[in-house]
Amino acid sequence: MTGLPTQPGHLRPAPENFLSAEQIGEVKAGRRDFLRSSLLAATAALVAPLTARAAAGSGDPDILKLPEWSTSSGRPVVERPYGSPSKYESQLVRRDLPGVLSKVPGNSVSFTPLQGLFGIITPSGLHYERHHQGWQDIDPARHRLMITASNPAFIKQAKVYTMDDLLRLPSVSRIHFLECGGNGASEWGAATFPTVQYTHGMLSCSEFTGVPLRLLLEDCGVDYKKARYVLAEGADGATLTRTIAMEMIESGEVLVAYGQNGEMLRPENGYPLRLIVPGAQGVSWVKWLRRIEVGDQPFASREETLSYVDLLPDGMHRQYTTINECKSVITSPSGGQTLLSQGFFNVTGLAWSGRGKIKQVDVSFDGGRNWKPARLDSAVLSKALTRFNIDWVWDGRPAILQSRAIDETGYVQPSYKQLRAVRGSQSTYHNNAIQSWEVLASGEVNNVQVL
Amino acid sequence: MTGLPTQPGHLRPAPENFLSAEQIGEVKAGRRDFLRSSLLAATAALVAPLTARAAAGSGDPDILKLPEWSTSSGRPVVERPYGSPSKYESQLVRRDLPGVLSKVPGNSVSFTPLQGLFGIITPSGLHYERHHQGWQDIDPARHRLMITASNPAFIKQAKVYTMDDLLRLPSVSRIHFLECGGNGASEWGAATFPTVQYTHGMLSCSEFTGVPLRLLLEDCGVDYKKARYVLAEGADGATLTRTIAMEMIESGEVLVAYGQNGEMLRPENGYPLRLIVPGAQGVSWVKWLRRIEVGDQPFASREETLSYVDLLPDGMHRQYTTINECKSVITSPSGGQTLLSQGFFNVTGLAWSGRGKIKQVDVSFDGGRNWKPARLDSAVLSKALTRFNIDWVWDGRPAILQSRAIDETGYVQPSYKQLRAVRGSQSTYHNNAIQSWEVLASGEVNNVQVL
Repeated sequence: MTGLPTQPGHLRPAPENFLSAEQIGEVKAGRRDFLRSSLLAATAALVAPLTARAAAGSGDPDILKLPEWSTSSGRPVVERPYGSPSKYESQLVRRDLPGVLSKVPGNSVSFTPLQGLFGIITPSGLHYERHHQGWQDIDPARHRLMITASNPAFIKQAKVYTMDDLLRLPSVSRIHFLECGGNGASEWGAATFPTVQYTHGMLSCSEFTGVPLRLLLEDCGVDYKKARYVLAEGADGATLTRTIAMEMIESGEVLVAYGQNGEMLRPENGYPLRLIVPGAQGVSWVKWLRRIEVGDQPFASREETLSYVDLLPDGMHRQYTTINECKSVITSPSGGQTLLSQGFFNVTGLAWSGRGKIKQVDVSFDGGRNWKPARLDSAVLSKALTRFNIDWVWDGRPAILQSRAIDETGYVQPSYKQLRAVRGSQSTYHNNAIQSWEVLASGEVNNVQVL
Repeated sequence: MTGLPTQPGHLRPAPENFLSAEQIGEVKAGRRDFLRSSLLAATAALVAPLTARAAAGSGDPDILKLPEWSTSSGRPVVERPYGSPSKYESQLVRRDLPGVLSKVPGNSVSFTPLQGLFGIITPSGLHYERHHQGWQDIDPARHRLMITASNPAFIKQAKVYTMDDLLRLPSVSRIHFLECGGNGASEWGAATFPTVQYTHGMLSCSEFTGVPLRLLLEDCGVDYKKARYVLAEGADGATLTRTIAMEMIESGEVLVAYGQNGEMLRPENGYPLRLIVPGAQGVSWVKWLRRIEVGDQPFASREETLSYVDLLPDGMHRQYTTINECKSVITSPSGGQTLLSQGFFNVTGLAWSGRGKIKQVDVSFDGGRNWKPARLDSAVLSKALTRFNIDWVWDGRPAILQSRAIDETGYVQPSYKQLRAVRGSQSTYHNNAIQSWEVLASGEVNNVQVL
């Protein structure tokens, strides 16, 4: 292998909560009406202490001297009956943009720190959050799921299920990505946010376990010929509702889930019950699910009329664009990080498609002139994140890094030029354009847009 | 679907830390010299409060009355920058057997609560622990991995890698199970421990990310013709060492891993560096990995001579039986749980093989006379846990539940009768016999052995 490390220190991580006063100013000046939320005066975000990982490689210890962890008795089992990360990883957390995205921290977003993660599974503690009226920790003994119908002809019998009822029914476990339709909203007009945590961090991937919704509808005696849509409703204060097309449910993919990454859902992720709609944008994955109403047409709810619609260049909008199309992003090196030395780098990132499996990911180091196929070095599963890696030897000259994913339908992730030709630059949702990271001769990595 | 729930309440979970004074007494009386550790007087384990899940379904709330979580503003994003489970799940934790397994809590075991988990991914906070001298939280900036050789002819150059060096190298991400060779040790002689947490809970499954060890050895200029084994050494106080055969490394499967379930390894799982040896028993997955020594023969270290050997009926022992053979267990209903009503149950469990993928799991409800194939309702990956589910309608009569896994090599999990014919009943490690759970007419589920 050429270009193996010749000097210590290769990458300084992005200060994870970095958003400079200048950048907040630009956002406030109206460059983006991000997520259609009001902007507030905000204090400059603090530049976080560098993580412990940044310090790795900087020393030159006497390796013959045993460290204290080799010469001491360690700590007992179950000192932590439910474990937590190392104290050296305390900077790798979810972060929001207080005052920038929303006046109301209960109607806001926190972002997954993609720049510091590996593989395809997102630890549940770092799953992004998007709440419409805050999160709740619901008592599962009191929670119910009701199945009703807009018209008595659509089902034979309305039913109410306890959590206990649901836990005794046949279940399946599937690994799927979950992406907010607004992921990348800040980037429609121009490169805005400096790090991948903020440009792409409304994205996570988990193993979900639950009962196929199809099974519950059939238990209620659904008439598939008449009933072509359902409305899913959450038990939170926002009473969030979304329409789900019956074809998705009939496929068996839509789950009424209680499990996430092996344990019960986390409260921020809908404990004790969440709708899983593989491939669909996050808002359809209704949290704290309490009701399914069976109908014969889309319900035109608030979250599919006033928001989660795609503004087009001619001023019209597209509605019910539920599926997240094929997309990818390089997570390291990425914006805010700094390359500390020339030589070999493992360039890594994530690819996903709401239409199925990822077939290929190409990477460019010269802003899209030349492309090389990356290795898909993880499980490659349908409607799940796929991890890609590619070798790169940095020669110290400026470079522009991009990734471009292709899914099993043959769909190719578009450039900003291609996306804007269809969608304009004033939209909010469903930005799946190719992301560009500019590497300067200094090693600094910046978010840029290449048309 | 027949037999859907007709009355509320179906399953009372096992009191997760249940081990009665009587049962502890039996263990102390020498029925098992469990894990070859000394036994201590122990206070009776407390019967844990039932989990909230047990209470689900017992009430009959007025569903037209909105609960407080539907009528209040919720809690803000990033209230918990690193999230944690619902307060209602506080009983689902790792548990040890204080005084039963070991005098020294740093040289002991904590068990994964399999009875309450879903799917195939084990949350990192619930990964089982088996330490030989306690766990350490090592400073990654000071940690090093050294590659050396027993003979200068085996490698061209010894090298020392910092964490920073390793993080810039090509990586892969793979989902694999990890099982202690001593999992099920208590059960060789007779059904001993009452719950699946203790009979099978030295078992977890994660997505691991790291550098193939092959790549590092080749970077050091290994001579594969001469160098056929390596010794892996941990940085903990036990300086745990294990021999790994070079064929496993050459396959590319053995990883020097820093990532687990998307984030850095947890301290109890070897942070910042652990050897991943897919299919091999846990002791080979050296935690806090600090040194690899390349050699031409097995190293006959303490953990492969004084322990982790298989005692045979004739008094001889087998050595270097590293691979965990095909095995399965029903996790719910399982020992300590109680069926509260007749009717439909989703019977669920886990299957795994150190030789590759699971091909089939059969389930018996009558102690092995009749078998039915279960559904494999998760990703089915090589050397990973596989989740199985099967429908069962309980008619209220006594029953004996068993699962039997078959892997892609055609190997069939043995009964206790078959296993003992070869291995006797005095062994400690590598018990992969079929587990039996007896359901009484009262609904109580007990650990029993069916020969």
